[in-house]
Amino acid sequence: AQMALERDYEGQRESVTRMRALMQTMQEAALFVNVTTGRIVEANPAAGRLLQTNPDELPGTALKRLLRHGSEPVDVDQLVEAARDGRAAPATLSSNNCATPLRLRPMSFRAAGQRVLLCLLTRHEQPDETPPGSDAHM
Amino acid sequence: AQMALERDYEGQRESVTRMRALMQTMQEAALFVNVTTGRIVEANPAAGRLLQTNPDELPGTALKRLLRHGSEPVDVDQLVEAARDGRAAPATLSSNNCATPLRLRPMSFRAAGQRVLLCLLTRHEQPDETPPGSDAHM
Repeated sequence: AQMALERDYEGQRESVTRMRALMQTMQEAALFVNVTTGRIVEANPAAGRLLQTNPDELPGTALKRLLRHGSEPVDVDQLVEAARDGRAAPATLSSNNCATPLRLRPMSFRAAGQRVLLCLLTRHEQPDETPPGSDAHM
Repeated sequence: AQMALERDYEGQRESVTRMRALMQTMQEAALFVNVTTGRIVEANPAAGRLLQTNPDELPGTALKRLLRHGSEPVDVDQLVEAARDGRAAPATLSSNNCATPLRLRPMSFRAAGQRVLLCLLTRHEQPDETPPGSDAHM
């Protein structure tokens, strides 16, 4: 049992390292949001570039302060519903008066007893590879 | 000490779950390759779509069988060097006689005592958001 636990622990440590490499290198902006608090818990450098913020300063920030949906701040609960329906959502940067159009693909899951929302953000004019209806759910 | 270990374990479990959500949902094709064996150890659905293969069948496959660099199979060691230099590499699908042009962004790191290569693949005509010289190294 002890060896199984250690193998499990090692395997998890591997995931932590792979996750860090992936978040650092991927081009898509990725934000993990605690649904209960509505605040970002993890963000990658691509998200920092898109949101024009130091990515290390994003954790703790409320998502609704950064993004708008139409004329209103984004609503995290609505994004969780959109994730369940497999819908992407248009969004714009709150900070940008020119309203840079973004596309937000949401995915909702539970981790460590908490509901988490993953937001993948791209600029709206970028071509989208994902065929319609193929957004994955956990 | 036991509580710290448990917190650590829980935090890692959270990373495993976030990693799974990210791999499932991201649009970029991601391949993790064991540098010693040259074989894929983890692949996401976007990689399956790009490589026109069931992503569950990718682990265990040698990367050099799937991708070419010019007229030759890709060389994993050369990709590790490119990662160290912060260079992206052009590549094409081995299986495709039309030689679909791809862009492979490599990143190399160590995990659990092994060297791992992360390959992020996009179709070459897609616009690239990453400013030159900003590829991250671990």
